[in-house]
Amino acid sequence: MTSKSPIKISCAECFTHGKIAREIHSFARGYPSQYHWNIKPSQIKISLVGGVFAPTINSVESLLKIKPLDPVLNLDGIKVYKEKEDLKMATMMAQAVLKISNSDIGIGTSAGIGKGGISVCNDKIILSCTSEIHADLRNSPVNLILERQKSGIEKALFLLENLINGTIDSLYSENIIIRYK
Amino acid sequence: MTSKSPIKISCAECFTHGKIAREIHSFARGYPSQYHWNIKPSQIKISLVGGVFAPTINSVESLLKIKPLDPVLNLDGIKVYKEKEDLKMATMMAQAVLKISNSDIGIGTSAGIGKGGISVCNDKIILSCTSEIHADLRNSPVNLILERQKSGIEKALFLLENLINGTIDSLYSENIIIRYK
Repeated sequence: MTSKSPIKISCAECFTHGKIAREIHSFARGYPSQYHWNIKPSQIKISLVGGVFAPTINSVESLLKIKPLDPVLNLDGIKVYKEKEDLKMATMMAQAVLKISNSDIGIGTSAGIGKGGISVCNDKIILSCTSEIHADLRNSPVNLILERQKSGIEKALFLLENLINGTIDSLYSENIIIRYK
Repeated sequence: MTSKSPIKISCAECFTHGKIAREIHSFARGYPSQYHWNIKPSQIKISLVGGVFAPTINSVESLLKIKPLDPVLNLDGIKVYKEKEDLKMATMMAQAVLKISNSDIGIGTSAGIGKGGISVCNDKIILSCTSEIHADLRNSPVNLILERQKSGIEKALFLLENLINGTIDSLYSENIIIRYK
């Protein structure tokens, strides 16, 4: 697949700390990449419109303009959810940033207690999954929290590449939630 | 200085790629820190409300809700300014994210051609400076662009710490622009 005008991508991140936005921008602009990509900048032009790092309830409301789900716990304003709610929040965040920034693809992430949620959407489809790592923001050691983060970033890039390539059929054998709008 | 409720900080970043927001969140939440801090989490409680990574004109308009200055160049939507305009843009971005997120401190960064601009503000004062490194987004090698980025992050943290500590007087001997509102 080739594209002439870049595919515009925006991110709304929680447990991935804005690293997905930075990775996409690095890929698109030729900075050193931290993750493996199966697509090449010479084949597919993508462009990061912008990213929001939204760990707190305040930032979800003020920057993404949505009302977040009620969290299980509030740590100095930081929202903590269980996995089921994280999956919902990730989708809400992806759709919010897609709409606000008028992008082609929106990405959302959220993780508190469990494997977290990752969501990648465009105006027709929503792809969601968890990371591979179970952790608990309340009491897991930092290295486990960061392992979950790394897994979440890899999953987000995997969903993104499949959405860009139109290889959605290949995802039915994976543990991916696929929803058409 | 000690504080009971955390000092709320928000960031609106361009050439620092969201790394200041991540560093402040790491400092506040006990993740591994990448930069040197002169304050300690046990002395001063700070909290990152949220961060915006806004490399494009679209993201400045849609996420920060301000009209950016006219850029010298537009690279796939990415705004490129000279140093004088970068200093202005950094302040506009810091003030915008401070207001939107109702935080105590706002941080803004922007760099295209020159040393770039870094701005840290609260409701009374605006501190601004350039980085230590001259680079040109149009043709400098990536390592120089990333050196400028690192210097910009260090400068932002320096301004932030002085604003938090109330040690503004010490900045008059430095190359810092100090403005009272």
